[in-house]
Amino acid sequence: MTSTSIVSLSGGVGGAKLSLGLLRVLPPDSLTVIVNTADDFTHLGLRIAPDIDTTVYTLANLVNPLTGWGRRDETWTFMAATAALGGETWFRLGDGDLAMHVERTRRLASGEPLSRITADIAQRLKIPANIIPMTDDVVATLVGTASGELAFQDYFVRQQCAPCVTALRFNGAESARAVPQAIAALQNPALAAVVICPSNPYLSIDPILAIPALKASLRHCRAPVVAVSPLIGGKAVKGPTAKIMAELDLSVSALEIARHYAGVIDGLVVDVGDRHLAEQFELPVLLTETLMTSLADRERLALEVLRFAGTLTKAGQQAEGR
Amino acid sequence: MTSTSIVSLSGGVGGAKLSLGLLRVLPPDSLTVIVNTADDFTHLGLRIAPDIDTTVYTLANLVNPLTGWGRRDETWTFMAATAALGGETWFRLGDGDLAMHVERTRRLASGEPLSRITADIAQRLKIPANIIPMTDDVVATLVGTASGELAFQDYFVRQQCAPCVTALRFNGAESARAVPQAIAALQNPALAAVVICPSNPYLSIDPILAIPALKASLRHCRAPVVAVSPLIGGKAVKGPTAKIMAELDLSVSALEIARHYAGVIDGLVVDVGDRHLAEQFELPVLLTETLMTSLADRERLALEVLRFAGTLTKAGQQAEGR
Repeated sequence: MTSTSIVSLSGGVGGAKLSLGLLRVLPPDSLTVIVNTADDFTHLGLRIAPDIDTTVYTLANLVNPLTGWGRRDETWTFMAATAALGGETWFRLGDGDLAMHVERTRRLASGEPLSRITADIAQRLKIPANIIPMTDDVVATLVGTASGELAFQDYFVRQQCAPCVTALRFNGAESARAVPQAIAALQNPALAAVVICPSNPYLSIDPILAIPALKASLRHCRAPVVAVSPLIGGKAVKGPTAKIMAELDLSVSALEIARHYAGVIDGLVVDVGDRHLAEQFELPVLLTETLMTSLADRERLALEVLRFAGTLTKAGQQAEGR
Repeated sequence: MTSTSIVSLSGGVGGAKLSLGLLRVLPPDSLTVIVNTADDFTHLGLRIAPDIDTTVYTLANLVNPLTGWGRRDETWTFMAATAALGGETWFRLGDGDLAMHVERTRRLASGEPLSRITADIAQRLKIPANIIPMTDDVVATLVGTASGELAFQDYFVRQQCAPCVTALRFNGAESARAVPQAIAALQNPALAAVVICPSNPYLSIDPILAIPALKASLRHCRAPVVAVSPLIGGKAVKGPTAKIMAELDLSVSALEIARHYAGVIDGLVVDVGDRHLAEQFELPVLLTETLMTSLADRERLALEVLRFAGTLTKAGQQAEGR
């Protein structure tokens, strides 16, 4: 199994949890996590990559277990001092977390690509997985609302997802180049499965799929692609997935998730809370518990997803075989 | 007395202590502190201005009372996290202190001058004094040693002043423009005294005097200029003043301080520990206790310095009067 390779596509908290499960049940260095960077932004002059950081902290066992993002044992002296200087405090930056932003900002300014910086940090923190940003180019999610387009973190953090979403746009994605290591991972002959984590499909996974080279590599990769639905009983575990689906006039249902990923995935993992939908899917479905509360949950779900992927035939190859 | 104006020239810890004394014995908004910026450097991508920060923290009563620099009630989570990422840790940056560097770096990058940023921060922290960097241009102290020139913080912090100093150079000072508010303070008709604080003359005050417009304004200002010798009994209270004087083949003596400032000062405040030299000075001297341990010490010394200045006739004006 040492030559087996697995790729996961991930946003922040939920995606990082399943990626951690995969990391723990797989041999070292067999997992590649391709991470959304369309949430990245520059704040207080620092370049912040929230999903990269959540992935790094989670896989390094440094994450705050209460929030699922940020660092455990964090202090907040910087934020208090920034407030006293009249600086912006709506985006909370912990003191330890700042080390990541300062180091990244410094290295980006010196011309290094985000992918190399991220790889170095992962290695320094002894993470036995490849964490790869979806691109080294700048892609920025813009959230359409009745009162105009909002920058992502303005919508997500400052306004706490309150505005009604009318459209989503990933500025720069069409011309963004995928990181070569991400393409290589998807073209690796030893690739056994691609797992689309239960991140928000519209905010976290769609930006990855909006990069032409990544979408094409996913479509042509030899391994089955399995998504894990982020809905449980028609509700999102965390974040605005269900709210956004409703605002975009989509049915808030795992069936809609399947439709959304049609043409990309070969199978869908659906929570047992949605078992009443089981007969209606037009692709292979695994019904299981998808809520990841404990570390054991993450490992169990990871193993089940991998076993499920192992039962699937790649759609394209199946067609060719017939 | 409300129209009285006092200017102090200052480096870091010792200068800030006397400036605080002056601030406390003067009416609000009558003190202008012109601060050395030749120690400033860029570290971890952040622009650090150690003497500005020490002055701001001291005058805002935020300074760490044990060190005389940095903030009280500081935490060090950023530094620990930076170490874990393999970043440089030889220059210690506290979590609260970082707010200053991040804010300054962001505003400098957006094109604002250091003087405006510093004034805004001082106002935000309710400091009833003007804190003015000696210049908005970049001036950098270079320390000549047997093994070549060292950047100032490399010499001062990383190598803890161990190398033998053969020369000092203030790169950029000759062409540096003084901040207009500093010139205005020196030309203010209400200026009653200029106080050269007991900072290191060679490292902290000379860079200020190396800026042509400041040196000229000092020479032509209407008020007497008084320096406070940083030596007590022929030894420095703090830092490498005495060590550098010896290395530069100067006698480690308040007499040498008087010679060093000749042509600039009208009087010198000398510690009672050096009273045996009293007869040898060629300018008016005030003998008093110059060690500032308590807040009362700072206030008492400030008052004595101001009273001493009040007894002095400006050298140039005296000559004109004769």
